[in-house]
Amino acid sequence: MPWDLAASDLSDLALGAALLGAGGGGDPYLGKSMAADALASTSGRVRFLDPDELDEDALVVTTAMLGAPTVLVEKLPSGKEVAVALRALERHLGRPVTATMPAECGGMNSMVPLLAAARLGLPVVDADGMGRAFPELSMTTFGAHGLSGSPMAVADEHGSVAVVDAGADNRRLESLARALAVSMGASASMAIYAMSGADVRRTAVPRTVSTAVRLGRAVQEARQCHRDPFTALEETLTRTVYEYGRTLFEGKVVDVERATTDGFARGRARIAVEGTADEGELVFQNENLVARMAGRTLAVVPDLVTVLHAESAEPVTTEGLRYGQRVRVFAISAPPPLRTPEALAAFGPGAFGIEENYRPLAPGSGG
Amino acid sequence: MPWDLAASDLSDLALGAALLGAGGGGDPYLGKSMAADALASTSGRVRFLDPDELDEDALVVTTAMLGAPTVLVEKLPSGKEVAVALRALERHLGRPVTATMPAECGGMNSMVPLLAAARLGLPVVDADGMGRAFPELSMTTFGAHGLSGSPMAVADEHGSVAVVDAGADNRRLESLARALAVSMGASASMAIYAMSGADVRRTAVPRTVSTAVRLGRAVQEARQCHRDPFTALEETLTRTVYEYGRTLFEGKVVDVERATTDGFARGRARIAVEGTADEGELVFQNENLVARMAGRTLAVVPDLVTVLHAESAEPVTTEGLRYGQRVRVFAISAPPPLRTPEALAAFGPGAFGIEENYRPLAPGSGG
Repeated sequence: MPWDLAASDLSDLALGAALLGAGGGGDPYLGKSMAADALASTSGRVRFLDPDELDEDALVVTTAMLGAPTVLVEKLPSGKEVAVALRALERHLGRPVTATMPAECGGMNSMVPLLAAARLGLPVVDADGMGRAFPELSMTTFGAHGLSGSPMAVADEHGSVAVVDAGADNRRLESLARALAVSMGASASMAIYAMSGADVRRTAVPRTVSTAVRLGRAVQEARQCHRDPFTALEETLTRTVYEYGRTLFEGKVVDVERATTDGFARGRARIAVEGTADEGELVFQNENLVARMAGRTLAVVPDLVTVLHAESAEPVTTEGLRYGQRVRVFAISAPPPLRTPEALAAFGPGAFGIEENYRPLAPGSGG
Repeated sequence: MPWDLAASDLSDLALGAALLGAGGGGDPYLGKSMAADALASTSGRVRFLDPDELDEDALVVTTAMLGAPTVLVEKLPSGKEVAVALRALERHLGRPVTATMPAECGGMNSMVPLLAAARLGLPVVDADGMGRAFPELSMTTFGAHGLSGSPMAVADEHGSVAVVDAGADNRRLESLARALAVSMGASASMAIYAMSGADVRRTAVPRTVSTAVRLGRAVQEARQCHRDPFTALEETLTRTVYEYGRTLFEGKVVDVERATTDGFARGRARIAVEGTADEGELVFQNENLVARMAGRTLAVVPDLVTVLHAESAEPVTTEGLRYGQRVRVFAISAPPPLRTPEALAAFGPGAFGIEENYRPLAPGSGG
């Protein structure tokens, strides 16, 4: 069934998308503001399609922003540049686009397709290519299943647009897109991964937008009813494609190192578990990649490691991590499409230089 | 009258184009090798059209390579990538290209259109957009007369191609093209400045390819007949759009400083005039920008300052300048289309941060 997302759902989506963003995917507050503006200027609703409802030969194109989070928070895209990118790709392909779709989950990139949809009157597919956020465009279930991101369109706020084709080489495409994004002011809007309805069903992580809305709603309802938001999250996750999530440890942020290099925000954080001598560690590259306790890995990419405020369960992005914050480090098991051999080759630990095998998040007491 | 350029003309063209390249425009030896390979694989000839022969609505597209000379000498383009760029732009425009044209004069970029022409069976227009070489794509008589470089296609040797549109903003286009070129390995082939036959007549510097051939031939014939090649050059120039050229000074290179920054080769050279205490100075950014003697400017951009071996009159690029070389610094007056107020605003001394007004090269004794 198609369903409509209304302006009143944006808070839930922003919270849930930030949670699934695993520390990346952009600032949820800005993403929400951006989407609220876009919806306010139109009918106030965006139509969502379930992947199962797409025609075999529908033309679906993902829309996203590319750039380091540090820059994203300083520069909001207008829906205009996303629409320019989508229309440029449509013109290049010589066929009308049926629907747009997020490339990843995240405070910003779950919202970007809503801007395009509101501007162009298009529906959005309830699915994406990561089921979380990743730092690189080439790290998608689309690419892991052999789809090419080319041709891709990139646009900036000045109306400049480029259509880029790197054939089957998604990593080369990534480097060209990133070069353009840096030249365009360190961020840009793009239309990428044009695919058929059949390809969406074969390669995308399904129903991640509606899942984000449900997760966000569960947390907000729990807060309102003075129930534990973490318990609400765990319960809701069991009824989603993620199946499972739990707290790894809780404590106080005692150190954060970060540097923006090559357009990525890289760093690590240490979290002291209160009342003990234990110290947890997070390593991130835009997104949290691994959580460790006393040298032992508790969760590693592609499983989702997310940091939540210890009281409110509000997600904290890697850019928002600060000394002194009291947080819970919460892990969510990656959906099955992220755990195939092809997927693990594209975005498992080794793809980030982490020299350990992927071991799926196991139920158990964390911290 | 159309005329054919044969493989046997390439030595003359390479020498003359390097001379007009004013120290830039790429290595003439490599340019010649590249063109010889391209001609050998086809009929061995390329058809040239005079600007006056073009239909009003002909579609002419310039082809060029972009990159710092330091990189060009390490990486030769195959004709394939130029053809890919031209075909991508043609597809984007939805009309067949009538002819290609050089963007600038230079050892490399006078040759690049020959590669495209040989591969695609297209004629080349005997004209260009600089009448010399300049370090930036936006520094053309096309742009000075209001033509837009957009849309532009950029291709690399891996088959990646991007079509970029920055509207009327040629400087933005330049920065996007340069970012792509750097990402593509610091150089790339491009198709840019699509224009009508009428636009070619209105904006291009006419007959620069045939002029380069004549100048190169004059030097080589003088050498063979043991006449002075500099005198031959001066005489031939009076019968071209350049009208005038002369030696500024002669001496030994005693110092060369250069650095590649932002994709440009910037630097300066000092030349000691033998038998005197006088010292000449050259300042360059890919191309020679200004020649001075004891603090007094003898020639400044857009007039052409070129360095020639003192005996052979072989052009020396700014990359080829070395301590101990005995050279003549030779200046050639810029063709009239380079001296309009619009042209001087785009590529006069101020465009390079040189704080002096353009004073046209005057006849007189130099060094």
